[in-house]
Amino acid sequence: MIKVNENFCRLAPNYLFSEVARKIQTFQKANPEAHVIKMSIGDVTRPLCPSAVEALHRAADDQGHPDTFHGYGPEQGYAFLAEKICQFDYAPRGISVQPDEIFISDGAKSDLGNIGDIFSPDCVAAITDPVYPVYVDTNVMAGRRVVFLPCNEANDFVPELPSEPVDLIYLCYPNNPTGTTLTRAQLKVWVDYALASGAVILFDSAYECFITEADIPHSIYEIPGAERCAIEFRSFSKTAGFTGMRCGYTVVPHALKGVDSLGHEVDLNNLWRRRQTTKFNGASYPIQRAAEAIFTPSGRIQIRESVDYYLRNAAILRQGVTAAGLSCRGGVNAPYVWVKTPDGITSWEFFDRLLAQTHVACTPGVGFGSCGEGYVRLTAFNTLAATEMAMDRISKFKI
Amino acid sequence: MIKVNENFCRLAPNYLFSEVARKIQTFQKANPEAHVIKMSIGDVTRPLCPSAVEALHRAADDQGHPDTFHGYGPEQGYAFLAEKICQFDYAPRGISVQPDEIFISDGAKSDLGNIGDIFSPDCVAAITDPVYPVYVDTNVMAGRRVVFLPCNEANDFVPELPSEPVDLIYLCYPNNPTGTTLTRAQLKVWVDYALASGAVILFDSAYECFITEADIPHSIYEIPGAERCAIEFRSFSKTAGFTGMRCGYTVVPHALKGVDSLGHEVDLNNLWRRRQTTKFNGASYPIQRAAEAIFTPSGRIQIRESVDYYLRNAAILRQGVTAAGLSCRGGVNAPYVWVKTPDGITSWEFFDRLLAQTHVACTPGVGFGSCGEGYVRLTAFNTLAATEMAMDRISKFKI
Repeated sequence: MIKVNENFCRLAPNYLFSEVARKIQTFQKANPEAHVIKMSIGDVTRPLCPSAVEALHRAADDQGHPDTFHGYGPEQGYAFLAEKICQFDYAPRGISVQPDEIFISDGAKSDLGNIGDIFSPDCVAAITDPVYPVYVDTNVMAGRRVVFLPCNEANDFVPELPSEPVDLIYLCYPNNPTGTTLTRAQLKVWVDYALASGAVILFDSAYECFITEADIPHSIYEIPGAERCAIEFRSFSKTAGFTGMRCGYTVVPHALKGVDSLGHEVDLNNLWRRRQTTKFNGASYPIQRAAEAIFTPSGRIQIRESVDYYLRNAAILRQGVTAAGLSCRGGVNAPYVWVKTPDGITSWEFFDRLLAQTHVACTPGVGFGSCGEGYVRLTAFNTLAATEMAMDRISKFKI
Repeated sequence: MIKVNENFCRLAPNYLFSEVARKIQTFQKANPEAHVIKMSIGDVTRPLCPSAVEALHRAADDQGHPDTFHGYGPEQGYAFLAEKICQFDYAPRGISVQPDEIFISDGAKSDLGNIGDIFSPDCVAAITDPVYPVYVDTNVMAGRRVVFLPCNEANDFVPELPSEPVDLIYLCYPNNPTGTTLTRAQLKVWVDYALASGAVILFDSAYECFITEADIPHSIYEIPGAERCAIEFRSFSKTAGFTGMRCGYTVVPHALKGVDSLGHEVDLNNLWRRRQTTKFNGASYPIQRAAEAIFTPSGRIQIRESVDYYLRNAAILRQGVTAAGLSCRGGVNAPYVWVKTPDGITSWEFFDRLLAQTHVACTPGVGFGSCGEGYVRLTAFNTLAATEMAMDRISKFKI
């Protein structure tokens, strides 16, 4: 019989969201009159902005006429979008990223999952804990050893440098699930470490649009030397409500080099280009046109309104949690609020009590890794009305 | 420095299409008055059908309103599309494929590239020659050994069973680039071989809509037992002009099993589901709605018209080539015509002479593998007018 990639058999099953759904369903069945509010959702709820909708309509018409029909596009994405990304996402921050260093795709999850293709299976991956499960699972699938970097109260949610040599370092800031950030000085420690040790930082900045404080870098390339040690992943999902549209991009600078087993220098931009041209056929043309539209003057105002709406929800969440006498992190530069459970009760116990008493659902932090035990995550993606109602209930919550 | 996946360094550079483009450009520069007709293009030219355009408009509106907005969808695709695929692509041929055996994606190229993730790097891949380069390159990237199966005049373009044990067998029928097919009896030989030897057939049926003859299977699952030894890849690219839209699907039957190194049976459907839920976030919602529309009564008529248009071009190609005294294969059940160069001249020499004398560009067969030497590929994807003009010129071609 066919031999499978048995690294898959080493994957830990992830029942987090299905278990949350099952518990809500059971509670709702037992309490049919209860109005459950889900502050556990990780998906956006506001519709696509009008500028992107209009662009999608125009692209639909393009596809219907022989003179404007677009067939196969460049695997790395259209220049019309890559140029806008350079112009609006990087140039204003003094970062010189060239269009041919941008690889547009169907989303950051695909890129974060596939990037491992270009690295040796012998590489050791350093991954913060708690964490977005994709980083861990994709490295387990590739047979790589994973070293965890705890993020907790003891280190103020700033991971410490690894105590053993590592090759790939996954950093996501603003962070999912904790909502915490790294300052410029804190991120510089990691860039300097990667440059000195020859590691690559895989920097997930999917939530950069939620940053409100001045000292928090939006891009790792704000740190000098990062173009020689970092790949950056960006998504239009949360920035522009593209979770169902599917578009993101990855930056692989020309200055970033690897090495083969003979010691020959290898250009990682070329390697990723070869991976993408071989295993990917480009993001959808109409979707790229919709993404382009968020960089128009009206598009930029519209997506900013949605981000501000979610940030207002996040502030309300923080107020409610604090009023209940609970401590929390995040919610200032991120759509996530990370709530500490009191008296050492577990994530799941807190989930159960909160649901039973307030009919509000959260996400147990332990589902994101062992260092998430003793925390729960609330998200800012529900409606303002639902968020206000949830926080009114939570502010009266007695554990 | 970071250790790269050095299998990438073993990839053969592929200059085929860039070299064709360079030669055309050079010729055009030297002969500015010449009207070059490109019969080398592999992309569709007819616009998206009206039903799909209308569906894309409706989906754009859906995305613009909170009540109909679609965020993250199922990673394996929406049921509304999977059910249509079962109903129209399989049930009418007596094939019982269930919706949860269908994995909708951003295209067959991605799936064909990524499917290797679930198999052991120790697997040996058998690949026909000449061939679509993605099969070879993705296996080289994974460090797998590749065994080539020659397809030539000697075996009437029907590959012979491998002379050594293999694990993964790539078959593409109707074939790109030769345009040849396997009959039911010929495909049954491969299914029986795979069942007996414990191999998996990766069956690429991206061109099944071009089949006109009764004895040619549209799906490998028309062959008894194939559900226990085959994965099928389908694309809307050529069927419905979706090359720029990006949508396809892969069928992984529940009956298909693999084995880990301890001899435990592993369900390949579960394995691919785990791969896709971890490294992919679903195909775009508006694009899936457009794909659904090709299964409506009007959509089915419209996409059939385009396929018939290309098949008419293919027939014209065959007539022109035959009138020139050349022999060819394909073009009856496929959009490709595979022309034998006369007098043992090479693919590139024929390309040069055809371009110089008739101002028609073809694709040299050797670019698809060493067994493609002595052949060139013509495609049916140009307009009817361009195809007629090209064939008028080719019919008078004197080598």
